[in-house]
Amino acid sequence: MLQIQRLSNEEAAILLEGARRKSLEIGVPMCTAVTDESGHLIQFDRMDGGKVSSISIAIDKAFTGAVARKGTHVYNQLCVPGKGTFGIHITNGGHFSIIGGGLPVTVGGVVVGGIGVSSGTSDEDLVVAEAAVAYFRERTGLAE
Amino acid sequence: MLQIQRLSNEEAAILLEGARRKSLEIGVPMCTAVTDESGHLIQFDRMDGGKVSSISIAIDKAFTGAVARKGTHVYNQLCVPGKGTFGIHITNGGHFSIIGGGLPVTVGGVVVGGIGVSSGTSDEDLVVAEAAVAYFRERTGLAE
Amino acid sequence: MLQIQRLSNEEAAILLEGARRKSLEIGVPMCTAVTDESGHLIQFDRMDGGKVSSISIAIDKAFTGAVARKGTHVYNQLCVPGKGTFGIHITNGGHFSIIGGGLPVTVGGVVVGGIGVSSGTSDEDLVVAEAAVAYFRERTGLAE
Amino acid sequence: MLQIQRLSNEEAAILLEGARRKSLEIGVPMCTAVTDESGHLIQFDRMDGGKVSSISIAIDKAFTGAVARKGTHVYNQLCVPGKGTFGIHITNGGHFSIIGGGLPVTVGGVVVGGIGVSSGTSDEDLVVAEAAVAYFRERTGLAE
Repeated sequence: MLQIQRLSNEEAAILLEGARRKSLEIGVPMCTAVTDESGHLIQFDRMDGGKVSSISIAIDKAFTGAVARKGTHVYNQLCVPGKGTFGIHITNGGHFSIIGGGLPVTVGGVVVGGIGVSSGTSDEDLVVAEAAVAYFRERTGLAE
Repeated sequence: MLQIQRLSNEEAAILLEGARRKSLEIGVPMCTAVTDESGHLIQFDRMDGGKVSSISIAIDKAFTGAVARKGTHVYNQLCVPGKGTFGIHITNGGHFSIIGGGLPVTVGGVVVGGIGVSSGTSDEDLVVAEAAVAYFRERTGLAE
Repeated sequence: MLQIQRLSNEEAAILLEGARRKSLEIGVPMCTAVTDESGHLIQFDRMDGGKVSSISIAIDKAFTGAVARKGTHVYNQLCVPGKGTFGIHITNGGHFSIIGGGLPVTVGGVVVGGIGVSSGTSDEDLVVAEAAVAYFRERTGLAE
Repeated sequence: MLQIQRLSNEEAAILLEGARRKSLEIGVPMCTAVTDESGHLIQFDRMDGGKVSSISIAIDKAFTGAVARKGTHVYNQLCVPGKGTFGIHITNGGHFSIIGGGLPVTVGGVVVGGIGVSSGTSDEDLVVAEAAVAYFRERTGLAE
């Protein structure tokens, strides 16, 4: 039997709170999703003003961060015509996101969940996702 | 120009909180979704122990409650072979839910959002959805 | 952090082996899928003669057994027009199976995976799925 | 009447075994799928640690190898904007893979199945797929 570590609901809420703080700081209302390590949604939050088109994008980013175990911005640079990974953006029923703003959440070197942020530019989305993970580490004391 | 009344993020959180309270009271960890009046997700919460299969069901119930403007349990009884509404469960790309636990959220006779609850029996899901709406009225003072 | 128990690849192979033995005994070549507790495929086997249409059905049955935590034959009886659960068969993107032959695999009262069998009648499929789980218990010594 | 040559279940298992051996050798736990010559799944194996996002990618690679009758890495280089094959990656309902790691399995110049490997880089995936086919030839004595 495998022993798996997974984000709890309470820990997912800390990630959402971290995302919200950074969103308010930079003045971009975001959609933020947190999934478990298997890519299944735990919590989602669309701030007032968050984009409707970003609902599914945020969820897909969190899914990808969790199950592909890399930041979606990393895949963005790998998924370029002529490179070996080109084409990955249409896999998994269209849910594999290659737009920055999705990150795996790791604890002790193991992926325990994913976070996805959307509504700003992909750079803004990534900044907020990173801030959310930093806030999570600060609050929980859990290391990468 | 139309003036639309829509649940705010803060009001959606009150609905989730109301659902969580009732879920804990009856001992069934739930997935709960809150959408705006257009059926678009505002917030989602899967409690520890909520079913993975209920993630999309809760979201679909909230969508249906908001945009079809009836409780999904009402459609459950209308959507029976031989009745005029039979077939509605496969519309909207499969997102029209006819399983109890989805409700419109109305204020002053107008739909301002939807709530969907899933993981228990459809009766339990409805009880939690109704409790969430009751809690929302109590906390906000907003009447049907 | 939640601590999750999950079927290993080796344990999934025992379930497939158990399904194969029963399939040979009753003379019906089967498609059998084993998923983890989150509904994600671990192993799949289509015996020579297994039906092509049963590939996705077996996978959907295993998914449903794992994440909805009930046998798919149980949902078959709940998902009847006029009953509260009618409509569940079209949820989860059409992957929620209500055809007998899907079972959760539990250890110590907790779902650790799912098994789905398809190609025979739903009764035959269920017999094979149950035999697979029994074989798994016999070989691993793990109780329900 | 056409006489079709098709991988048996036993031969599919040899391909999976070959993939597993190479995966262990290079230290990358893989998802591996084997399809018949029509692109329909015969066997699938996700090793402990294989990526969830690679389940469907491996299956799509095997499908593509079998039915498009070329390695998916070949299509990767053909499917570049401005080249005549660009666009093929979104055909077949999104199941046409252009990421290396999918190969046709031929016997006597005829495609009898496909293999798809995913979880590593596309180069690693291809190395494992090629090793699996080599192992298959070694074990069965069947020439290309």
